[in-house]
Amino acid sequence: MEKANLRSVLKLNVNFHECDPLQIVWHGNYLKYFEECREDFCRNHGISYLDAIKNGFSTPIVKSNCEHKASLKYGDQFEIETTFINSAAARMTFDYRIFLSEKLVCTGQTTQVFLNEKGELQLYNPPFFLDWKQKMELI
Amino acid sequence: MEKANLRSVLKLNVNFHECDPLQIVWHGNYLKYFEECREDFCRNHGISYLDAIKNGFSTPIVKSNCEHKASLKYGDQFEIETTFINSAAARMTFDYRIFLSEKLVCTGQTTQVFLNEKGELQLYNPPFFLDWKQKMELI
Amino acid sequence: MEKANLRSVLKLNVNFHECDPLQIVWHGNYLKYFEECREDFCRNHGISYLDAIKNGFSTPIVKSNCEHKASLKYGDQFEIETTFINSAAARMTFDYRIFLSEKLVCTGQTTQVFLNEKGELQLYNPPFFLDWKQKMELI
Amino acid sequence: MEKANLRSVLKLNVNFHECDPLQIVWHGNYLKYFEECREDFCRNHGISYLDAIKNGFSTPIVKSNCEHKASLKYGDQFEIETTFINSAAARMTFDYRIFLSEKLVCTGQTTQVFLNEKGELQLYNPPFFLDWKQKMELI
Repeated sequence: MEKANLRSVLKLNVNFHECDPLQIVWHGNYLKYFEECREDFCRNHGISYLDAIKNGFSTPIVKSNCEHKASLKYGDQFEIETTFINSAAARMTFDYRIFLSEKLVCTGQTTQVFLNEKGELQLYNPPFFLDWKQKMELI
Repeated sequence: MEKANLRSVLKLNVNFHECDPLQIVWHGNYLKYFEECREDFCRNHGISYLDAIKNGFSTPIVKSNCEHKASLKYGDQFEIETTFINSAAARMTFDYRIFLSEKLVCTGQTTQVFLNEKGELQLYNPPFFLDWKQKMELI
Repeated sequence: MEKANLRSVLKLNVNFHECDPLQIVWHGNYLKYFEECREDFCRNHGISYLDAIKNGFSTPIVKSNCEHKASLKYGDQFEIETTFINSAAARMTFDYRIFLSEKLVCTGQTTQVFLNEKGELQLYNPPFFLDWKQKMELI
Repeated sequence: MEKANLRSVLKLNVNFHECDPLQIVWHGNYLKYFEECREDFCRNHGISYLDAIKNGFSTPIVKSNCEHKASLKYGDQFEIETTFINSAAARMTFDYRIFLSEKLVCTGQTTQVFLNEKGELQLYNPPFFLDWKQKMELI
């Protein structure tokens, strides 16, 4: 029986400084929205950047993508949803979906790896991450 | 005989405000670098955002991705290369590669579509874009 | 009898992408915090950027300053307070104060002017702004 | 006889992602321009952020202000000038002026202090900074 994916949902306002001369959110700012929601997920589920650091690991992003079906404009309040994608690989993958009044406007994905304090790529999941997965019943 | 792809190369410094607490360029800022190089390409090859606007079209980004093989840190001077990817579809696609001392640190791609002044997606290439392609011997 | 100043208070988290290699919020990002709180004020008190636009005016910032007594770091949750500074001049002035656990970390001020649709500076307060002031019992 | 102030001048393009829905550079981005020019100054005159760090000091900004006489818009190429303001106090102060076709569009100032590795404010100028001042004939 499969464990349901872990999710976090956040309501955000489009800020003026996030919009460009086309009167829409500048495409690169979606990576900020993704990060805000991923951080919210991590705070809620006890697996934050600061936990990783405390355990001697950093988790830089090595891959990201973003696809826009519609745009967001100044004044919009939208909903963003982050889903943890479980896998055996030594990485953290999150999916993102942004909704405006229940209409899907944007999807995306980010992948993070684990580096130790010397900056070396970890080929196996660090113990603190395996502990977290176990606690979350993901393994 | 195939026409060589159109290219533009830019030398940039990593700015302090582009770096994050991991002492590296924050991943979302690569989309700014891509844009700076794409704009340089467009200025150099006579197909800028302002040309599109003048002709009644905007060219929002509908898709982007970025893959990091290594990181850039404060103080680095890097080279970024933008290549126009020619295709028959009504879109503009650019590939990006970032090099630090000739080592590839990042690749990426963006896709833009054409919207008319009412914001309607154009299924065919607008005349101004076909004219440009012809001038560039891409069609 | 003086009318109490109009205020708005917002709780915000420091985001990872807002921090710099010194592990603190990059100084320029405080202007983003100020804007987020000012927009919140404007939404709450019915005098938003979009109201100004609808009435034929834009309200660009012509002056800003920021003074830091302490720093904010990743993981901090802080409180920001915006106060409308009433004056007879044809401008909008806001004061900002940021608190971390009731300790003042930052103060700032921004000044906006009114431009009409031709981009001309307005030497007198536009009617929509006077109406708002009256409604708020500021005049 | 007074030593002429130390100066650095940089030519920059307004990038698309720096502009807001009013079609002008978002006011907070001027602090980025100031930083880019200050960093250029520091590289040229041998007193960079990395030099400070190497000597055990960080130099956070504690005060900034910005005043706009006109706006910059997408497509503009402008000139920015940074001047080191010499003083006996244990701080670094820089003045900024931005010109568009020789017209002054913006002025600003930033002040930085010295913190040691424990984050303690230095009341006296650190030796590395005094050495630099001597080399520059500022004391």
